[in-house]
Amino acid sequence: MANVVEQLKHLFMPKSVAVIGASRHPGKIGHEILRNLIEYGFEGKIYPINPTAEEILGLKVYPSILDVPDEVDLAVISIPAHKVPHVLEECGVKGVKTTAIISSGFGEIGNVELEREVLDIARKYGIRILGPNIIGVVYTPSKLNASFGPRDVVKGNIAFLSQSGALGIALMGWTITEEIGLSAVVSLGNKIDIDDADLLEFFYEDENTRVITIYMEGLRDGRKFMKVAAKVTKKKPVIVLKSGRSERGAKAAASHTGSLAGADRIFDAAFKQSGVLRAITFEDMFDWARALATQPPVRMNEAVIITNGGGAGVMATDAAEEYGVNLLEPSPKLIETFRKYMPEFGSPKNPVDLTGQADAKSYYGAVKAAFESEEVGAIIVLYCRTAVLDPMDMAKAVMDAVKDAKEEGYVKPIVVNLLGGEDTIKASKELNRKGIPSYPIPERAVKTLGAMIKWSKWAGYLK
Amino acid sequence: MANVVEQLKHLFMPKSVAVIGASRHPGKIGHEILRNLIEYGFEGKIYPINPTAEEILGLKVYPSILDVPDEVDLAVISIPAHKVPHVLEECGVKGVKTTAIISSGFGEIGNVELEREVLDIARKYGIRILGPNIIGVVYTPSKLNASFGPRDVVKGNIAFLSQSGALGIALMGWTITEEIGLSAVVSLGNKIDIDDADLLEFFYEDENTRVITIYMEGLRDGRKFMKVAAKVTKKKPVIVLKSGRSERGAKAAASHTGSLAGADRIFDAAFKQSGVLRAITFEDMFDWARALATQPPVRMNEAVIITNGGGAGVMATDAAEEYGVNLLEPSPKLIETFRKYMPEFGSPKNPVDLTGQADAKSYYGAVKAAFESEEVGAIIVLYCRTAVLDPMDMAKAVMDAVKDAKEEGYVKPIVVNLLGGEDTIKASKELNRKGIPSYPIPERAVKTLGAMIKWSKWAGYLK
Repeated sequence: MANVVEQLKHLFMPKSVAVIGASRHPGKIGHEILRNLIEYGFEGKIYPINPTAEEILGLKVYPSILDVPDEVDLAVISIPAHKVPHVLEECGVKGVKTTAIISSGFGEIGNVELEREVLDIARKYGIRILGPNIIGVVYTPSKLNASFGPRDVVKGNIAFLSQSGALGIALMGWTITEEIGLSAVVSLGNKIDIDDADLLEFFYEDENTRVITIYMEGLRDGRKFMKVAAKVTKKKPVIVLKSGRSERGAKAAASHTGSLAGADRIFDAAFKQSGVLRAITFEDMFDWARALATQPPVRMNEAVIITNGGGAGVMATDAAEEYGVNLLEPSPKLIETFRKYMPEFGSPKNPVDLTGQADAKSYYGAVKAAFESEEVGAIIVLYCRTAVLDPMDMAKAVMDAVKDAKEEGYVKPIVVNLLGGEDTIKASKELNRKGIPSYPIPERAVKTLGAMIKWSKWAGYLK
Repeated sequence: MANVVEQLKHLFMPKSVAVIGASRHPGKIGHEILRNLIEYGFEGKIYPINPTAEEILGLKVYPSILDVPDEVDLAVISIPAHKVPHVLEECGVKGVKTTAIISSGFGEIGNVELEREVLDIARKYGIRILGPNIIGVVYTPSKLNASFGPRDVVKGNIAFLSQSGALGIALMGWTITEEIGLSAVVSLGNKIDIDDADLLEFFYEDENTRVITIYMEGLRDGRKFMKVAAKVTKKKPVIVLKSGRSERGAKAAASHTGSLAGADRIFDAAFKQSGVLRAITFEDMFDWARALATQPPVRMNEAVIITNGGGAGVMATDAAEEYGVNLLEPSPKLIETFRKYMPEFGSPKNPVDLTGQADAKSYYGAVKAAFESEEVGAIIVLYCRTAVLDPMDMAKAVMDAVKDAKEEGYVKPIVVNLLGGEDTIKASKELNRKGIPSYPIPERAVKTLGAMIKWSKWAGYLK
């Protein structure tokens, strides 16, 4: 299996990339991929291939891959489906190591024979294939954006794999707007060669990736996936959004990608047995990924809620029960500590209600105390917009507490919710930028902690 | 009960408002309320009351309510709790009709006697009291913002009632950012007089309100609420977010507002029996309210999903099953109609997959066809960001289809999801502005339709 990892290095960290079907015309896929490659800053060599052009976007164009004077690690192929076999043969002769076949018109429209033909050629030459019928591949540590999706993918350590190209593009946009940092975007398409399990093997080893997220509609080889997943999830969280949960949804999935969706409860059981976190919506998937990519594991399921609004505290308490987050019964000593950071009518029990009078010092003090206390295993911080405390000051107080605690050796998972208008959204973004996961409603913060607890149990950090 | 409605007209549509405890100092509650009143454009008379000031924000100040030369419909009281009885006596002598007591320091900190004293005075003079311990009241048709929450509340026809002041302020901010149009914001606080049921009576009659949303932690008189709710919900949807669902949450709620939260399953059953829609999160509450406030009732639980992304279609299909949305089996005739708006490899069954090649014409055609078909009861439109179709063009196509269909007499509920980055968010906002509810993930659109179906059944539009 180490072999797969080595092979996939050519896909994610190529020294040179050829774009077969590079186009002069903006808007054409073969143009957009080339432009993304250049503008996202890929530092290796880029070879546009097109028999009828001499220069595109300032780069010299070669009529065929065989004319490229150098070695080619990765060939991105965006030409009509029926021409793919011929071009792949040329790639084989050239010694290309991996290909990403963008072209559609294969198994997804019933053209299974063409798929088989392509696969046979690949096997003959030992070329690995991503796709076909994909939007491309992105790997941010290499500054590689070989896709026709949005360009400015935010760097980070979440890998995102998508069986659906359309969703892949839409969600790339989503991650950019939400500033979710990605290590990779991989469009899987028809998965005739490279599949989810292969990619799991790669990201298992990849030190630029901490969390793996997958949008899945079906699997060809369920056993292989589950076996690899069971290994990978012990080291890194894997979050899967598998659609086709309902009978009718499964049917729709089958007609969409031709996947054998299979009975959903089999998937569900298999995910559980292999430690895969199953998300139902994209909101969940990226909410969880953001926290799992930045926070330490939960080593004690004893959470404390710190809030300036009683109502928000109650809602988080409800959610805690729902999502398996255990709320600490604080000791009298800890209660006395919390009491220091609130007016007389505050509540130092859990939820710790600093009241609407809470200022930055109250938040700093209470959060810091939670880090310092041996009783506390995880921290949930809530804030309702008040006139007393600007949301950005609240965010800074939390950042300072996290930073100072860390310097003193206290490391614990923390999730935040800021509830309010435009300026709370800004403060929330700032927290996220600093690696402190922050959400717009209390339930999403608590649900995320619930997912972290699930994974921490599975990976053995928590009994 | 008509009496309550008449009395509450003085609260929501006062001809004159006094602010008792008006302050010169920005940041003080008594200053912010006065400023909100002025700047939100209240067109009636405003009388600041303060014994030690002569002019605040350009308005003449009166030392006492008794010195005001005119009648006063509404007195907003923001002074220390122990001074409230004296001032309320003066209000009584003056003939003030309603008061909103902002001041805290009553039942919520155990000061029940003071509450009783205040209530006795109010009863003596026939004054109705909102509060105490509130952030104020907003009624957008009167341009009345008598609160110390955010100022620029967006006009619309959703009434929002909140037992928690902190959440009230935070959510006012939320509705502004999300452009959720409100008719009213009512902070209920300790509810010593005016309660949820009274307000339901008012909004039942109020022609500026189409949907009533309530954040609730507990009720003093559950029977009264449920009785009124059962009547109101037949005419207008009532959405309640009642926190304290879990045992521990209920305890936290009790310590927060002193509400007897009661066993949650009793509430749950009572909500069901009185046609109240129960939301678990604020996201749900405002998602549903937005659609119920703009869309016609569902008269046939036969929904069609129109999408340009197969994956999104599958996810919506899954959600449909989960949230009680029945998906139409389209007739051969309707299938043929849908087929006109897609390439050969599209899927004209439900979900109707226009494919990634869909342009504005495809969307317009398919959505219009869904409006025109007698088989279709509700329409779910999904869009994944593609290079082929700008999200704003997609939004316009949907708006045009809705408009043209309406002109031809076809009126059906529609919900939309646009998945992608910054520009899809903009297009989504534009749809919402035009009264077409649009959401960031497919599940939220479908869940909302599920809530509409629930209410439509209850109200007798749907069998």
